[in-house]
Amino acid sequence: MSGIPDGERRARIALTAITEPGHPRLLRDVARLGAGEVLAMLEAGEHPLATTLRARLSGFDLGRELAAAERVGARYVAPGDPEWPAQIEDLVDVPELHDRGGMPIGLWVRGPARLDVAAQRSVSIVGSRSSTTYGAQIAADLAAEVTDAGYAVVSGAAFGIDQSAHRGCLARAGTTIAALACGIDRVYPESHRTLIERIGAEGLLISEAGLGAAPMRIRFLARNRLIAALSPGTVVVEAAIRSGALNTASWAEGLNRVVMGVPGPITSEASHGVHELIRARGALLVTTGAEVLEAIAPIGEWTLPIPREPARLRDLLTSEQRQVLDAVPVARPAPLVRIVRTAGLQPERVAEAMVQLEEAGLVAECDGRWHVTMRANAE
Amino acid sequence: MSGIPDGERRARIALTAITEPGHPRLLRDVARLGAGEVLAMLEAGEHPLATTLRARLSGFDLGRELAAAERVGARYVAPGDPEWPAQIEDLVDVPELHDRGGMPIGLWVRGPARLDVAAQRSVSIVGSRSSTTYGAQIAADLAAEVTDAGYAVVSGAAFGIDQSAHRGCLARAGTTIAALACGIDRVYPESHRTLIERIGAEGLLISEAGLGAAPMRIRFLARNRLIAALSPGTVVVEAAIRSGALNTASWAEGLNRVVMGVPGPITSEASHGVHELIRARGALLVTTGAEVLEAIAPIGEWTLPIPREPARLRDLLTSEQRQVLDAVPVARPAPLVRIVRTAGLQPERVAEAMVQLEEAGLVAECDGRWHVTMRANAE
Repeated sequence: MSGIPDGERRARIALTAITEPGHPRLLRDVARLGAGEVLAMLEAGEHPLATTLRARLSGFDLGRELAAAERVGARYVAPGDPEWPAQIEDLVDVPELHDRGGMPIGLWVRGPARLDVAAQRSVSIVGSRSSTTYGAQIAADLAAEVTDAGYAVVSGAAFGIDQSAHRGCLARAGTTIAALACGIDRVYPESHRTLIERIGAEGLLISEAGLGAAPMRIRFLARNRLIAALSPGTVVVEAAIRSGALNTASWAEGLNRVVMGVPGPITSEASHGVHELIRARGALLVTTGAEVLEAIAPIGEWTLPIPREPARLRDLLTSEQRQVLDAVPVARPAPLVRIVRTAGLQPERVAEAMVQLEEAGLVAECDGRWHVTMRANAE
Repeated sequence: MSGIPDGERRARIALTAITEPGHPRLLRDVARLGAGEVLAMLEAGEHPLATTLRARLSGFDLGRELAAAERVGARYVAPGDPEWPAQIEDLVDVPELHDRGGMPIGLWVRGPARLDVAAQRSVSIVGSRSSTTYGAQIAADLAAEVTDAGYAVVSGAAFGIDQSAHRGCLARAGTTIAALACGIDRVYPESHRTLIERIGAEGLLISEAGLGAAPMRIRFLARNRLIAALSPGTVVVEAAIRSGALNTASWAEGLNRVVMGVPGPITSEASHGVHELIRARGALLVTTGAEVLEAIAPIGEWTLPIPREPARLRDLLTSEQRQVLDAVPVARPAPLVRIVRTAGLQPERVAEAMVQLEEAGLVAECDGRWHVTMRANAE
């Protein structure tokens, strides 16, 4: 699994351990100079962050780090490794958000799936931690639908929408990827221990944070950009106006990924942020997994059938039959002579069409007066 | 009220009486040649529609027509009249839909408001006849909101969304305009008699159909284009995939009016057509009257405040305070030294910020370990 020199790999593991995920300055330097060079500068006190990171650096022990990784079955995936998801490098050019940004130094990964393969065909599904039953059901349904189409589901293992998305995928025996804000050897939230263990056993857990790292806000903000970067599109299912899920959507925007939102009742605060995302930020409104896939799949692979509803009887009529049908009153019945006048056709043509319309159950006659049936009148 | 020659007015009243609303060929000829000329051609048998319209023409009696209008207090408004809403002339250039199209010959109008003035600042609100309580409430709320802002509400007096929109406007003592598919001296649906009479007494009833005309599908299809043409924007509140309200939206699209839709639960079939309108046809998602007005009002007249929610405490912090807050664990409490390491700031700066954050109720300490409070953790 080694695609990069051992020294560079060791340096990346060390930098991952001693720095915060998504530190823009540090990640820029690593991208430019390589991890070995930046680590050497830190050790020599020649990097601007040397003072800040001194205590962490002196406390770092590679052997202990690798042993901790082995205990939880985690592997380190770095740029250049076969499993490295190349699309994550798009983060290099994206402006920072909340002081976070940049391409990760590397990722700790646990689970049987191969990250690059799974992420290649994946959908990110995120949303409010305080979801409604409506949102939870939709997240699970969407996840199940895209799973059935062979796509992986990326999310953050949080309360609410995240967990519903993971569960919807697992229920269809799919591959789900949870990007964690804490170290890959930790579990957060604690009540999701069973879910997270299952994702590690059947799908993938990934983290940009060092082993043992606690869940802190700064790490959530950095983590969100991984969820946005891994997949070609992010779907937001329920988000209040200031939900963290909108932060993930902002990353997806910056990355030119497809940003999608599922609408809900406008009376539900849990949908306000999604509506704003669609209304003012140009996110695509989606209501089904098929619509999601149509938006993100390579051109031609997914196309929605149009129309999506069964054709109305009306569509099967000739234009003359339609013209006659349109001239039949919807309220009080009228004699044929009035219908002939309204239709503007020869009486014998109208009479012929009326017979056909009656056979189709679209019009009915009573005491010499005609009216349209409920069937024809149905919206 | 007479802006056009009497002969031309009489010819328009006659043509209105004997033809179907929105007959594209006839309306093109009237727009090109004038009503007097077209009527003369019909009388002389020199127009292609002469045969079709012969019976109607011979049965027409201007005196009887004017007497019928007077009985219900209706006035005829034609192009060139002061009350004529000029924006309706945009219909001249719009391709036909369902064999209907063109600029009306004239309109029968009832009610105390002035049509051109009311329509100038108006919003069309339409939707499913089989609306849900959710949709009905939203239509009424939206109508009330735009009414309070001084806008008239245009709709079709139908069951469901239409009637809720009219009622929402009337409840705020606003001006509502109902475009009818039947003659202005008739009522359809019958159960809306009280509502329609009230609109005629307080707002405006308008119809392109001749007096006494029965409600027929062809007239509904033609009527929809008036609703779309009168106002600068049409809002669709609930519509099944094949709802007639989407026909009105198509007219609004063709007229380059603003087309808007109010989302709903994706589990509600009554919202499917609206979602499709937003998703695939580029309609603007709206959730409040203010958003509707922002979309349609002249530039600068309506601007939404941003952000629309009260600022979070977090937004009032200095960037250093935020940096420290972001370093405080959200799960298990941590000693100050760990927070200092994560924050990447000098210990004394962190300690100072922690005191301020504690005063603000964002962090709390217990046995020398710090954690963020529910307040800081709230989404």
